[in-house]
Amino acid sequence: MEPLDYHAEERSKASFDVEEMKIVWAGSRHAFEISDRAARLVASDPVFRKDNRTMLSRKELFKDTLRKTAHAVKRTIELNLSEEETHTLWFYVDQPAYANLHWGMFIPAIEGQGTEEQKQKWLPMAHNMQIIGCYAQTELGHGSNVQGLETTATFDPQTDEFVIHSPTLTSSKWWPGGLGKVSTHAVVYARLRTDGQDYGVHGFIVQLRSLDDHSPLPGITVGDIGMKFGSGAYNSMDNGLLRFDHVRIPRNQMLMRLSQVTREGKYVQSDVPRQLVYGTMVYVRQIIVSEASCALSRAVCIATRYSAVRRQFGSENGGPETQVINYKTQQSRLFPLLASAYAFRFVGEWMKWLYTDVSKRLQANDFSTLPEVHACAAGLKSITTSATADAIEECRKLCGGHGYLSCSGLPELFAVYIPNCTYEGDNIVMLLQVARFLMKTISRLVSGKMPVGTAAYLGRVEHLMQCHCEVQRAEDWLKHSIILEAFEARSARMSVACAESLSRFSTPEEGFGEISADLVEAAVAHCQLIIVSKFIEKLQQDIPGKGVKTQLENLCNVYALSLLHKHLGHFLSTGCITPKQGALANEQLRSLYSQVRPNAIALVDAFNHTDHYLGSVLGCYDGNVYQKLYEEAWKSPLNDTVVPDGYDEYIRPLLKQHFRTARL
Amino acid sequence: MEPLDYHAEERSKASFDVEEMKIVWAGSRHAFEISDRAARLVASDPVFRKDNRTMLSRKELFKDTLRKTAHAVKRTIELNLSEEETHTLWFYVDQPAYANLHWGMFIPAIEGQGTEEQKQKWLPMAHNMQIIGCYAQTELGHGSNVQGLETTATFDPQTDEFVIHSPTLTSSKWWPGGLGKVSTHAVVYARLRTDGQDYGVHGFIVQLRSLDDHSPLPGITVGDIGMKFGSGAYNSMDNGLLRFDHVRIPRNQMLMRLSQVTREGKYVQSDVPRQLVYGTMVYVRQIIVSEASCALSRAVCIATRYSAVRRQFGSENGGPETQVINYKTQQSRLFPLLASAYAFRFVGEWMKWLYTDVSKRLQANDFSTLPEVHACAAGLKSITTSATADAIEECRKLCGGHGYLSCSGLPELFAVYIPNCTYEGDNIVMLLQVARFLMKTISRLVSGKMPVGTAAYLGRVEHLMQCHCEVQRAEDWLKHSIILEAFEARSARMSVACAESLSRFSTPEEGFGEISADLVEAAVAHCQLIIVSKFIEKLQQDIPGKGVKTQLENLCNVYALSLLHKHLGHFLSTGCITPKQGALANEQLRSLYSQVRPNAIALVDAFNHTDHYLGSVLGCYDGNVYQKLYEEAWKSPLNDTVVPDGYDEYIRPLLKQHFRTARL
Repeated sequence: MEPLDYHAEERSKASFDVEEMKIVWAGSRHAFEISDRAARLVASDPVFRKDNRTMLSRKELFKDTLRKTAHAVKRTIELNLSEEETHTLWFYVDQPAYANLHWGMFIPAIEGQGTEEQKQKWLPMAHNMQIIGCYAQTELGHGSNVQGLETTATFDPQTDEFVIHSPTLTSSKWWPGGLGKVSTHAVVYARLRTDGQDYGVHGFIVQLRSLDDHSPLPGITVGDIGMKFGSGAYNSMDNGLLRFDHVRIPRNQMLMRLSQVTREGKYVQSDVPRQLVYGTMVYVRQIIVSEASCALSRAVCIATRYSAVRRQFGSENGGPETQVINYKTQQSRLFPLLASAYAFRFVGEWMKWLYTDVSKRLQANDFSTLPEVHACAAGLKSITTSATADAIEECRKLCGGHGYLSCSGLPELFAVYIPNCTYEGDNIVMLLQVARFLMKTISRLVSGKMPVGTAAYLGRVEHLMQCHCEVQRAEDWLKHSIILEAFEARSARMSVACAESLSRFSTPEEGFGEISADLVEAAVAHCQLIIVSKFIEKLQQDIPGKGVKTQLENLCNVYALSLLHKHLGHFLSTGCITPKQGALANEQLRSLYSQVRPNAIALVDAFNHTDHYLGSVLGCYDGNVYQKLYEEAWKSPLNDTVVPDGYDEYIRPLLKQHFRTARL
Repeated sequence: MEPLDYHAEERSKASFDVEEMKIVWAGSRHAFEISDRAARLVASDPVFRKDNRTMLSRKELFKDTLRKTAHAVKRTIELNLSEEETHTLWFYVDQPAYANLHWGMFIPAIEGQGTEEQKQKWLPMAHNMQIIGCYAQTELGHGSNVQGLETTATFDPQTDEFVIHSPTLTSSKWWPGGLGKVSTHAVVYARLRTDGQDYGVHGFIVQLRSLDDHSPLPGITVGDIGMKFGSGAYNSMDNGLLRFDHVRIPRNQMLMRLSQVTREGKYVQSDVPRQLVYGTMVYVRQIIVSEASCALSRAVCIATRYSAVRRQFGSENGGPETQVINYKTQQSRLFPLLASAYAFRFVGEWMKWLYTDVSKRLQANDFSTLPEVHACAAGLKSITTSATADAIEECRKLCGGHGYLSCSGLPELFAVYIPNCTYEGDNIVMLLQVARFLMKTISRLVSGKMPVGTAAYLGRVEHLMQCHCEVQRAEDWLKHSIILEAFEARSARMSVACAESLSRFSTPEEGFGEISADLVEAAVAHCQLIIVSKFIEKLQQDIPGKGVKTQLENLCNVYALSLLHKHLGHFLSTGCITPKQGALANEQLRSLYSQVRPNAIALVDAFNHTDHYLGSVLGCYDGNVYQKLYEEAWKSPLNDTVVPDGYDEYIRPLLKQHFRTARL
């Protein structure tokens, strides 16, 4: 028997080679194969099932996470997986767990900030998971502003130890993942005090729990910080709180690559350039951007497939109603998100190159591109994660009422995704950093300092301030050069306008505070330009496969023109385009939607998401949505009994009027 | 000892009489007193505690809801509360429960669609809760399009009964609140078949469960549809599914006010005007708009208070950091939402008048204002609920990382609120209805038909198409007449542009489909104008209390100008204002933020929300946020034991390298 496929007709409509598009999406055939294998491995293993996750109590969910983590470790050992395969397997397990912080933050912190000796001592234990670590930076009263941290590490020359202490309530460490119930160790950030002085925030390796019985060591108060957004989602993680009551650690547990405290308590800076930390930052943010494209593609896949199944209105002569994906209101909300998924994918891929490039430069002591790279990574982290968070919720809305059911997968995806907007740099703080970079770049133009990389266009600011968009017909908006210049002009003009506003204030700082909302908008414009331009660059590469490039051309244009439509006010107020040209862009957008429409299902198939990874009844590959919704419903805990618990105490007495009689 | 108040200084800064503002917010002194008393009654009753709600399993949560509902019924009887007081008490219990549907949908359906005889039979039992009912309309495969429902009610003249049946899987009733585990009865919507014909969808009273032991009656399959968005939130409700296998009910259980089936099976329409149903629709949507202002005010109150407590960056000489509420980026996101809360409050209040007015007209068989009123209610329902849903999430973001904790109250508020965007008319479908009304209104202008009420400005379309905004300085944007004309011109021009586009298509229907995204934008512009104009009308009333009116003036201007900034593209592309005027509006907005800033805490105090109702550690009245966060954390289920469940099976073996040894 043929397997059922409600989407078969949709799939047959595609005018491009889906298998080739899968390779483009994955980045390479190698990446595709690694990813495909890991996804199937996880999907076929009953320990990794997640369909019941939102029904578990917090304790059950946490235990389930411990089980999955141990199982994943076991499997990677049994299958002798490479580092890349292991990483991909963890990704598909798709459940936040302490191990993410151990591998993703604790180990890298020691690698980046530890001396050779420290690395030799700690890393083998960490790699074997003989110790499990977390990254204890943020405090109850202190998030983005690392310099405001209050925890102290005071050197005691008598004993050659640091005394780690939490002097106030607000200095309690708060949020670190894996801290609450699991970590045996932590890299703790604290103000270094020695020699009668405060040397600012430094990292220290601190043991938290006994390796024998897991109980907290003396002086350590540690626990879970409580429930978080949603059911399932990040509640699988033991985000923790931590207080120190004069906890002593040996001097050599301060991470000493960049600065040391000597036996005598003298603070000494090493000659290792501080800029090296930026390399790691670019690396982490590149991963976040790549993961944004994954999360977004997942939401878009669900919404697109269900939009092809769901029918509403428009029935003629009692025939079937219209597939909602055929409505222009649906397309105008959904297809820009589909295009964004591809756009973020390619910009994430480009960031890998950026990271390699900046790493090479740093090793050669070339710090010249660092400000630009730093602004670029901060800005892309910010706008891709914000856009993805909003897009997941928009996809939920696009699924109508059923999107609100947990089994649609979208509520949990939203809840688990949104911390990306806050961690590794709050998104608004990030944009303000981009804005500072832009203002500095512009102020230096007068002295002839030419900007590089993603800011190079600002070197053509004179042209961009006065150029006119040449669009006369809707199709003109399909030209890359026209789109690019419109985005460059808009970004340049918004930045220049901000720079001019700033000059009117008595101090730049006052001005920066006062017009910060405008600065954020200018930063967004700059970052959107980067994404558009990297998408266009991608299209200049050789892309094999029947029709693949044409589809990507369409998506690139949808991405750019939908942004233009959304931010029309900026394009018009800066005079980059005329109202008439704005209307033509909108017209072109509609016609692009019609071209995307027949390929929509195939374009989300190209993400190669398994039903396990999607975790959505609405997004299932075969489209047999209603049958699955019906089966899923019966798994509700309330359906365990026909008559609900509480009937005798709280329903029957009502129906039988017992409360009224009692009163008379 | 003085009670602690971290916000005391903020409160002392207010330049208006908060107590008087409370009356304005409540609508009247009477409304304030009813609401204040009910809020305190609920807050002081331990049965109504809700701080542990997000930690309960689904079954525990549901039982808790049954308990609260029974307790609320008992209390209303014991205290002999009036209908208004009872309603307000339910509101403050603040937990979705079957009783909402019983009182809010089941009873009104019988009242509106039942004959006198039917009302006499069913309503007394329903009012006493001897039967509990729900409203079974939507189906697994059918939501907004009521005419697409599949459930059938076939008249059997042999037995004088209707046979209720679910012919397909997609015809399963799906979503009705209270259906899953509680309701004994339902008003079921089904296609009436008699006399060999299908007469479309009608309502029928059907008993579902035995009044003796609560078991489903023969032929009835009923259950809960499963987990929904978030923890706590709407999971307290037993949204249900329902299938009929040829269930027979007596003929007189068809709701027969508007049409009847005779003993012989003849379908007869009564002479009761069908338009009467629109009265109820306006009533329900008015309540939804009022509740939008409540939900929004709650989120804004939390975010505002916490923004005054939270400090970040900007420390000078080691002093305290800056309160985040002082940052313009924070203000430019938060204050428009504060202004929206007031704006929605006043438009909701105005809708009460609208409902009274249309009810009087309907009774006098005057249907002339109905299309306008219907469009107005649909549009306001749509844009206030969409804006509120987005605003709650924005407020969560404005609270930084801690907003993600359940104890911030914002995750659950978001999860419980968002169904408002879908039920009682999907928000996009609503806007398309508004757009249809606008297009019709414009097409009738040529024949001299003058629009009424909220559409009256379209009668001045010739002027509005060519008027020029007179703003020359930022302060000019404070004039009501200027704001109003800019909003009227923008809305009129967007509608006219759509009407012109439509005329270019071969059929209006094709055009309507093709440009529907533009039509939605035109509808939004129209609805925003209504809210702005009703806020301005409110300010023309006598408003007592020191400084109260000044504050409302500021908020009205913030509301209007922030919308103008957000939708700048529409104002510019239609030529309603110039880029320069747009920039001046932005400048004025910044100066308005500075005026709102010192009054912000008092403006949210004026909502008079109890800490119980807010349900937020971050929003607590006294501002003692960090102490409360710390105490709250220890309530986490994971903190029940020091060493977590699962340690022996899944953590210790990892640390002790058991998986590795096993392999060797």
